[in-house]
Amino acid sequence: MRLIHPENLEDIALGAGVLGTGGGGDPYIGKLMGIEAIHTYGPVQLVTPDEIADDCMVAHSAMMGAPTVMVEKLPRGTEIVEAFLALQTHLERKIDYTTSAEAGGLNSTTPFTVAARLGIPVVDADGMGRAFPELQMVTPTLYGVAATPMAIADEKGNASIITTVDNRWTERLARTICIEMGTTAMIALYPMSGRQLKDSMVAGTLTRAEHIGRTIREAREQHLDPIEAVRRETGAFEVFRGKVADVQRRTETGFARGEATFHGTAEWDGSQLVLRFQNEHLLAIRDGRVVVSVPDLITVLDAETAEPVTTEGLRYGLRVVVLGIPCDPRWRTQEGLALVGPGYFKYDVDYVPVEQRLAVPSERALA
Amino acid sequence: MRLIHPENLEDIALGAGVLGTGGGGDPYIGKLMGIEAIHTYGPVQLVTPDEIADDCMVAHSAMMGAPTVMVEKLPRGTEIVEAFLALQTHLERKIDYTTSAEAGGLNSTTPFTVAARLGIPVVDADGMGRAFPELQMVTPTLYGVAATPMAIADEKGNASIITTVDNRWTERLARTICIEMGTTAMIALYPMSGRQLKDSMVAGTLTRAEHIGRTIREAREQHLDPIEAVRRETGAFEVFRGKVADVQRRTETGFARGEATFHGTAEWDGSQLVLRFQNEHLLAIRDGRVVVSVPDLITVLDAETAEPVTTEGLRYGLRVVVLGIPCDPRWRTQEGLALVGPGYFKYDVDYVPVEQRLAVPSERALA
Repeated sequence: MRLIHPENLEDIALGAGVLGTGGGGDPYIGKLMGIEAIHTYGPVQLVTPDEIADDCMVAHSAMMGAPTVMVEKLPRGTEIVEAFLALQTHLERKIDYTTSAEAGGLNSTTPFTVAARLGIPVVDADGMGRAFPELQMVTPTLYGVAATPMAIADEKGNASIITTVDNRWTERLARTICIEMGTTAMIALYPMSGRQLKDSMVAGTLTRAEHIGRTIREAREQHLDPIEAVRRETGAFEVFRGKVADVQRRTETGFARGEATFHGTAEWDGSQLVLRFQNEHLLAIRDGRVVVSVPDLITVLDAETAEPVTTEGLRYGLRVVVLGIPCDPRWRTQEGLALVGPGYFKYDVDYVPVEQRLAVPSERALA
Repeated sequence: MRLIHPENLEDIALGAGVLGTGGGGDPYIGKLMGIEAIHTYGPVQLVTPDEIADDCMVAHSAMMGAPTVMVEKLPRGTEIVEAFLALQTHLERKIDYTTSAEAGGLNSTTPFTVAARLGIPVVDADGMGRAFPELQMVTPTLYGVAATPMAIADEKGNASIITTVDNRWTERLARTICIEMGTTAMIALYPMSGRQLKDSMVAGTLTRAEHIGRTIREAREQHLDPIEAVRRETGAFEVFRGKVADVQRRTETGFARGEATFHGTAEWDGSQLVLRFQNEHLLAIRDGRVVVSVPDLITVLDAETAEPVTTEGLRYGLRVVVLGIPCDPRWRTQEGLALVGPGYFKYDVDYVPVEQRLAVPSERALA
């Protein structure tokens, strides 16, 4: 167990932005909410999965919706607690811990807001080891853990508890409620035992995010190359250097979908990279060839500062470095790829691990 | 208290079809479900509002969605009980009685399915004295009774409990969930005390429906004019006689919306009537002039049999009589008209009671 102070949250949010692969919400909003809650209620305990009892109760706290809308519709910070308490009331027992659904800029820090306000610890884990756009896309789904009962609440005071036949249906119903609530909502879901958490979640993600964030911060302070620091810390492969030439983006069915085109600079001069995204970056196509695909991580960093760039932060002329990072090995199984592989997102691309793609010069072109 | 047997349900469903003004679902489906439940579990007690205690708990049981879809997606009968039980679990107390949300073909008999299966009585009342398309359109809303907590369930096993800041939000969230569930769902809502029911609901609606249904049945059996029997029983005004010339209908945002045109026969030869509907008939325009509008009832009956014709049952060539029936006086107040008057449905028409419209030869034309 260790205590998380505002300065830890700064590093966690920064590092989770790297793992968030363009999605997971604006780190700034999540950080502000968390820091404010810690200032008011005191530091939050972060415990490792090993430290919790098998029979305790844990639930994910997160924000749901299109990040493009979140920027304009700031959460108050109280509705996330309301969703959590609604779930607790429904379960008729105390939820002992909360944890992260995903390692995204916003949702890595959201649990700390809940934890500070309710005086409970956060478990150092997440359900993805990265960010994904849909609720069923967590490793607990691979282990048969149900996403429901789930609570969803908006800033107006509306709330819903849903119970579904499977986690795909959870996504369907919650997404439609979220859209009606104004395209963003606060959620509490995947209530599970400590044993289930240990078996099914990605352990240590928050500490990993903090290390990545600290590495970037220290490199900046010491005038070292922060991009190189990220590569070293994450085992990332450099996919591209260039500047944003074009971004097409639309908010549809509650997601920020689109495509960004980059023109190469330095050693990539004359080359072109296209990223396709649905909240998160899903596919990187360099000069017509797929070079990274989900479930591996595609991360866009500001070329100077290594600040993670979210899909909604992509703007014309921005100079960036694009990295590919190997995903959690469970996503590379047949079951994992069925849940989050390129085929699920309707891309006719076979999944090849990023380290193999980038080691082999010739790749199959995108169909 | 009296017992409701299958033959009573036949009359109730028939009469409620008259009060359902084209909506409220297919009477046949509701009747079959109710009759099957009564055959299996025994007759259902029907009690008057006066017979229930002030501190008892009552909730509406209903089916929600577009009737056009209900016809193709038959409920199993168990999901309505599941919605009711989910609400009961959420309330943490027994719901002592159920009652009707609306006097529609389907939803007048839906509560009997719940009541038979759970062994509880039905209260002889409804929230409209007719059928309306949206959940907030009940007299309890005029008295400040909350629609939530509300339960909604589908035939697959998905369920949701919603709590909203007002009854308009209940409609918004429940409608979007209902659409995602497949455009029909079973609901339990408006949990209220016996006192609230007595103050806020339309008493005696189920018995009124039964009387109308019995009158039609007896007139048919005795070879008398069943249309005349309905007029006498309901205080209806004859608006038109004619045959269906054209029907335009679409299912959008979870409703069956459209317009039907009738060409006059007999004394209406040469005249034309247009009905506009959203699940229920909302506006009757005869030769360019509004002759009946919500909240008064617009009822279409088969000209021979007086069988109520739902909006989805309108088909080319059908010979019908169109009646206008005065609504419950509470709908004619300023608050009532704000909730269900023509303006709410975006018709630029002042509400004039049907008995006045049809007494005065010249009316303002539809803007």
